[in-house]
Amino acid sequence: MNTMQELDIKKFIDEKIKLIRETVMDGIAINALSGGIDSSTVTILGHRALGDKLKTVFVENGLMREKEAIQVAGIFKDLGVNIEIIDAREEFFSALKGITDPEEKREAITQTFYKNVFGRIVRESGAKFLLQGTILTDIDETIAGIKRQHNVFEQLGIDPLEVFGYNIIEPLIELRKDGVRKVGKTLGLPHELFDRIPFPGPALSARVIGAVTRERIETVRKATTIVEQMLKDTNAFQYMAILHEDRVTGMRNGKRDFGQQIEIRCWDSVDARTAEPTQLPFETLKKLALKIISDVPCIVSVTYNIAPKPPSTIEAV
Amino acid sequence: MNTMQELDIKKFIDEKIKLIRETVMDGIAINALSGGIDSSTVTILGHRALGDKLKTVFVENGLMREKEAIQVAGIFKDLGVNIEIIDAREEFFSALKGITDPEEKREAITQTFYKNVFGRIVRESGAKFLLQGTILTDIDETIAGIKRQHNVFEQLGIDPLEVFGYNIIEPLIELRKDGVRKVGKTLGLPHELFDRIPFPGPALSARVIGAVTRERIETVRKATTIVEQMLKDTNAFQYMAILHEDRVTGMRNGKRDFGQQIEIRCWDSVDARTAEPTQLPFETLKKLALKIISDVPCIVSVTYNIAPKPPSTIEAV
Repeated sequence: MNTMQELDIKKFIDEKIKLIRETVMDGIAINALSGGIDSSTVTILGHRALGDKLKTVFVENGLMREKEAIQVAGIFKDLGVNIEIIDAREEFFSALKGITDPEEKREAITQTFYKNVFGRIVRESGAKFLLQGTILTDIDETIAGIKRQHNVFEQLGIDPLEVFGYNIIEPLIELRKDGVRKVGKTLGLPHELFDRIPFPGPALSARVIGAVTRERIETVRKATTIVEQMLKDTNAFQYMAILHEDRVTGMRNGKRDFGQQIEIRCWDSVDARTAEPTQLPFETLKKLALKIISDVPCIVSVTYNIAPKPPSTIEAV
Repeated sequence: MNTMQELDIKKFIDEKIKLIRETVMDGIAINALSGGIDSSTVTILGHRALGDKLKTVFVENGLMREKEAIQVAGIFKDLGVNIEIIDAREEFFSALKGITDPEEKREAITQTFYKNVFGRIVRESGAKFLLQGTILTDIDETIAGIKRQHNVFEQLGIDPLEVFGYNIIEPLIELRKDGVRKVGKTLGLPHELFDRIPFPGPALSARVIGAVTRERIETVRKATTIVEQMLKDTNAFQYMAILHEDRVTGMRNGKRDFGQQIEIRCWDSVDARTAEPTQLPFETLKKLALKIISDVPCIVSVTYNIAPKPPSTIEAV
C-alpha cells in the first residue's frame, strides 16, 4: 500500500479510526500538533476516533513561522478541536545555545521536546497513548542514515514505552506525502491548512546553518514569511528560506557591509523521495531577492537552489 | 575622463606610452601579469613603450584557473612578448594556512606576493619601476572601504618606494573596465585574451569562503572551469563559481553525504559599479548544476545568485 493509487482512502480512514479506538480503549491519548500536514492529519484523525479523549497541544518552541501557533489553533478551533498552546521558547533556546552541528541541534530539540516539554505535559496529563504523524518517507531516510527524524524511535529499535514512558500510535506510517494530503483532505482539513507546505520537525532551526539564536531565527523567520507569501501560488511541493552561516561581502550606502546570505529553495516533487528545483520565472526570483534584501536586516545576498535531490536533500540541515 | 565616450583612445595610448618612456627613461621596468584584462593591457602597453626594458613575470601562486599560466604565456608569446613563469605555490599555500578571515587572506596574499615573491624578483632584476594595472573602480572601492585591493598603496597614502622599494606606474588609473577593454583591443590584444572575464587579484582564494587549502582550491578550480566553459557564450560581464564553507546535507547512493555547496554568480554590468544577475535560461542553470554535481568531488548542492550589486558585491569574499 505504497501509493494512493492503490488506496481506498475512506476504507483506510475507517480502519485507522477503528485501530486507534481499539488501542486507546477507555484511556486518554495526547498528541502534539506542529501545523504541518502530517501532524494536522493525525490530529483530525485522532479527534474523529477519540473526541475529547485526545488532548492536542501546540508547543511554541520559538522556532515556528510567524504567528504559526495562533493561526493553527484558530483553524482547529473552527473544526471544533481545542488546541492548547504551550510556551516553551526559553527551554528550547537554552538547549540550543552554543550548538552548531546539525545532528546535535536535532538531538537538543528532540530531547527538549520529548524529555522536558512534551514528556512533562504527557506525564501531567495522565495520557498513556501518543499519536504521531510519522510517514513512510521518515522511515526510509532514517534507515538510509540520511537524517535522524525525531519521531521514529520505534523503527530504530528504541522502545518508546521504556524511553519516554508512553506508547506511540502512528496511523500514517504506510503513507507518503501525497497519501497524507489525500487523507487530510478527505477528513475535512480546510484548504488553508491542507495546502500548507511541508515544514521540518526541527522547524526554523533546520533553516539556519550554524548556531541557532533568537536573532538568527528571527532573520530566517522574516525571510520565510516573504518566500512563503511570494511562492504560495506556484503549486510547488515545498519552498523555503535558509540562513547561511558563511559571511559574504556586501555594500550599503557606499560602505562595506560584511553580511549574510539567504538561500531560497523551491521544489517540484510528488513524494519528497526525489525533487527538482522549480523553474520559477526570473522576474519572481528578482522580486524575492529585492524584497528580502530590503526587508530582512543584515542580508546582502540571496541565492536560488538549482541542484536536484539527489544528491541534494530537500532541507539543507 | 571617466567614460570611454569622452576618450580618444589612440590619443590616450600615445600619451601613456610617452609618459611611461619619460618616467622609466634608461631604467628597467617590471610588471606582473595575471592574465586579466587590466594586467594584460598594462603589459602590452608597457611593451609598446619599453620593449625589452620591461620584464614581465607570471607568478604561479597555485590559486589560478586551470592551465592559466601556460595559456597566458602562450598568448603573449604570439604577440612577441616573453613572459617568465615563477612557481611560488608553496609560499602562497604556507602563507594562507589556517587563515579564514577574508581580509587576512587578502593581506597574506598581498604580503606574500609583494614582499616575498615579487619583491624578491624585483630586487634581483634591478628594476626600479613597477607597472600596475590599477583602474578607477579599485580606487572607488578602496576609498569606500568595501574591499582592500592589493594594488592601491599609492592612493591609500602608503609610499610604495618606502614600503616595497620601488616606484609604481599606473597608466590605466583613469579608466573603468569598459575603457580598459577598449584600450586593450586597440593595442592588439587577441580576441581570446581580450574576452577573458575579469578575475580577482587574490584569484581563486577569493572564490573560497573560509580556509584556503590545496584541496579546496582544486574543488573551486574544477567548478570554475565548468562555469567558464558553459557560460562563455552568454556575453555576461562576469561569471564565477564560489565554494562555500557551510556544510549542507546531501545524499549519495542512498546514504547521507554531508557535503559542500557551490554558488554560481553571473553578472550583467557595464563597469562593475552596479550589476544585475544575468537571466540565464533555467535549462542552462540545470545543466550547470548537474555537471558540477557529477564532476566535482564532495559537491552536493549548487545555487545561483539572484541579488543585485548593491547591496551584494560582484565577488563573495
